[in-house]
Amino acid sequence: MAQVIEVSDPGDPRLADFRDLSTADRRPDRPGGRGLVIAEGVVVVRRLLASPYPVRALLGVRRRIEAMAEDLDGIDAPAYVATAEVMAETVGFHLNRGVLASADRAPAPDPLELVERARTVAVLEGVGDHENLGALFRNAAALGVDAVLLAPGCSDPLYRRSVRVSMGHVLAVPFAPIEPWPDGVKWLRDSGFRVLALTPRADSVPLSDAVGPGERVAVLLGSEGPGLTDAAIDAADAAVRIPMAGGVDSLNVATAAAVAFYALNASSEGGS
Amino acid sequence: MAQVIEVSDPGDPRLADFRDLSTADRRPDRPGGRGLVIAEGVVVVRRLLASPYPVRALLGVRRRIEAMAEDLDGIDAPAYVATAEVMAETVGFHLNRGVLASADRAPAPDPLELVERARTVAVLEGVGDHENLGALFRNAAALGVDAVLLAPGCSDPLYRRSVRVSMGHVLAVPFAPIEPWPDGVKWLRDSGFRVLALTPRADSVPLSDAVGPGERVAVLLGSEGPGLTDAAIDAADAAVRIPMAGGVDSLNVATAAAVAFYALNASSEGGS
Repeated sequence: MAQVIEVSDPGDPRLADFRDLSTADRRPDRPGGRGLVIAEGVVVVRRLLASPYPVRALLGVRRRIEAMAEDLDGIDAPAYVATAEVMAETVGFHLNRGVLASADRAPAPDPLELVERARTVAVLEGVGDHENLGALFRNAAALGVDAVLLAPGCSDPLYRRSVRVSMGHVLAVPFAPIEPWPDGVKWLRDSGFRVLALTPRADSVPLSDAVGPGERVAVLLGSEGPGLTDAAIDAADAAVRIPMAGGVDSLNVATAAAVAFYALNASSEGGS
Repeated sequence: MAQVIEVSDPGDPRLADFRDLSTADRRPDRPGGRGLVIAEGVVVVRRLLASPYPVRALLGVRRRIEAMAEDLDGIDAPAYVATAEVMAETVGFHLNRGVLASADRAPAPDPLELVERARTVAVLEGVGDHENLGALFRNAAALGVDAVLLAPGCSDPLYRRSVRVSMGHVLAVPFAPIEPWPDGVKWLRDSGFRVLALTPRADSVPLSDAVGPGERVAVLLGSEGPGLTDAAIDAADAAVRIPMAGGVDSLNVATAAAVAFYALNASSEGGS
């Protein structure tokens, strides 16, 4: 059971993980960034506690920490209780959600092992927007994607805003870099995946025509503006598209991903 | 051709449509709100110019107004040219996109006529978040939804932020209120629609099993937290769900809508 500790001084050194989040956490992967995983709100903190990331500490108002008593069973990390004012002064802004948790990063899993167990994989190229990335992980978790591979140009999925937008699901869906790029695509194909590049390019075929029952599928997704690089599309088995009504160029990347994940699972299960 | 007029005084009364947008436009449907449609950025302004809404004026930096010369052909409204500084002072914040347009609202179309011509209809209940509403219209436009009906609790789709998030597609997809509610659902069924309520409720069936080839479909969508009311679900022909992986309670409402629109079109076209 986590030890519950009252704090009243925003300068308390034990709250260092949560200090000045709006600035110090801006780019945790950069020099000066602390590289911690930060979860905000009961739902996301619960998902952090259930994840493989080693929890370091919690900070919350009394009501929230008490509401999480069961979740804190078996957690070997301090839970700091403070007033909303002390919390706001510590983190640098007012928190609506009333509870935070910090964790260390974990080493990225081996892509080979990750993919071996997977049936549906998403491969992202150039998804640099933290909110799109978070939303995409939420959709991946909801729609049965087993692993996410990150090609060049993607943001850090563990950035605080991505974690929040993902509703914490980025802490549950395993991810790893894919290197080299795009030659790694060949390795996916050799591992038994049918690799589909989602693109509105003229030679693409409708998504629903591209997958047979039981096939293991990896879908390549690019960012909203430029889309996938030609090199990535050429490395795939086929270019696929979501049929769109005239005049509408594209969906948001996370939304397009959700449609693709749904369609691929429906097709590979042999449903209509 | 729109008349291009230089302005240098942020207080110029001809710029009244664009003044203090962040406050005056907050709730255009409320007293003090001016009820105008405001489009921001070249892409959205173009969609406004192509829409049925009567354009009142444009305001932009020279470069943007010049880039839109062709679009302004045949537009009978003034295009005011100003510096970025004058624009910022007029609207009350700095505009990255460099061009704005204003239009009057148009009377809501008759829901009967709207639905008569439609094959796929979205019916929204309690979608109060402007960004979700805008994203939902973008997805509706991309995925072949012919009309949107608004049940109680929905926000104003023509609010500035909805227009922006929709990428201007809210100006192209026709919408109207549906009244009374939920009795209006019966009227949809009598008009030849199969009415499906999207809900994770236990008695729901997978989306892909619910529609036959060629069927006209109306899909009921509720907001992310509370979802559809029981009264709305009970009024539908069937409750349907998007199959989700264990532990993930729901998708964002606009994302769920996109998956549903895709699945319904794929099913009703008889594709796999």
